[in-house]
Amino acid sequence: MNKKVFQLIVDNTSGVLSRISGLFSRRGYNIESITAGVTMDPKFTRITIVTSGDDDILEQIEKQVAKLIDVRSIVELTPENSVYRELLMVKVKADATQRVEISTVVDIFRANIIDVAVDSLIIELIGNQPKIDAFLSMLEGYEIFETARTGIAGLSRGTENISYKENKVDKQL
Amino acid sequence: MNKKVFQLIVDNTSGVLSRISGLFSRRGYNIESITAGVTMDPKFTRITIVTSGDDDILEQIEKQVAKLIDVRSIVELTPENSVYRELLMVKVKADATQRVEISTVVDIFRANIIDVAVDSLIIELIGNQPKIDAFLSMLEGYEIFETARTGIAGLSRGTENISYKENKVDKQL
Repeated sequence: MNKKVFQLIVDNTSGVLSRISGLFSRRGYNIESITAGVTMDPKFTRITIVTSGDDDILEQIEKQVAKLIDVRSIVELTPENSVYRELLMVKVKADATQRVEISTVVDIFRANIIDVAVDSLIIELIGNQPKIDAFLSMLEGYEIFETARTGIAGLSRGTENISYKENKVDKQL
Repeated sequence: MNKKVFQLIVDNTSGVLSRISGLFSRRGYNIESITAGVTMDPKFTRITIVTSGDDDILEQIEKQVAKLIDVRSIVELTPENSVYRELLMVKVKADATQRVEISTVVDIFRANIIDVAVDSLIIELIGNQPKIDAFLSMLEGYEIFETARTGIAGLSRGTENISYKENKVDKQL
């Protein structure tokens, strides 16, 4: 089982997400995470999909997704040539004493406290998977009420592998 | 046209995302963004959907989604009682001089530079929609190669509105 991160440029249409997730679900492909956001050109959406399977399956996924309507391109974002990040929000129980302790952990991870209530805190953190897992394990001694994670977004490093320049759409697509 | 943010707790199954996005697409409901992440209990996924429409449509959406298989709960995250955040990654063209200028903007927005190449930078930023828009408008004078956005994740403030405590699953669902 390998894990791959794919980056898709798709038309910004209402059906495209459902076609992609439908393909994964019908064929039993695994989606570990999927994030989507409109590009600087509002006609297009960039989607980052994390998936896993053996090499045959991953090759199939790439080919099948490329064939879908509204999908303009699919490329792999390799760990060597890309940066991946995820956003985590955590609501954790905290009285006055715990607030101080948790603040220390928050500072170490360069996270931020974004909401404080009498008995709880909400923390935001950006990280790759290992950092987010490490942060959550530091909070294990506290009562975690809720977590919200966005899934992974990624970009290729440098300018060599840009599949799609957002200010030069007409030339690229 | 109003905008609403819904938070769903769903079973962590391969078909659930496709069922939700299929419902939106078939009925012509608008999805502005959707993010999904596994909760502390790996049996469940928390999904945040931003959607818009008139009040009738928004009410329909809430009811229809609640009926779907694998959907355990759907609640609205209101602006007054919630925090929303999105993760943005931007790759921008930067020579040595531009790098200094852009660093200043990055510091003001408490963003981070996470990759530097000879002629480009990758920046990460967490924010709500207005902050992210303001940051992108500050970069308008530069050449933006690529952006990746996760879509919005949200949590309710305080502990009164918790629909689902992640460490008390059996009691809550």
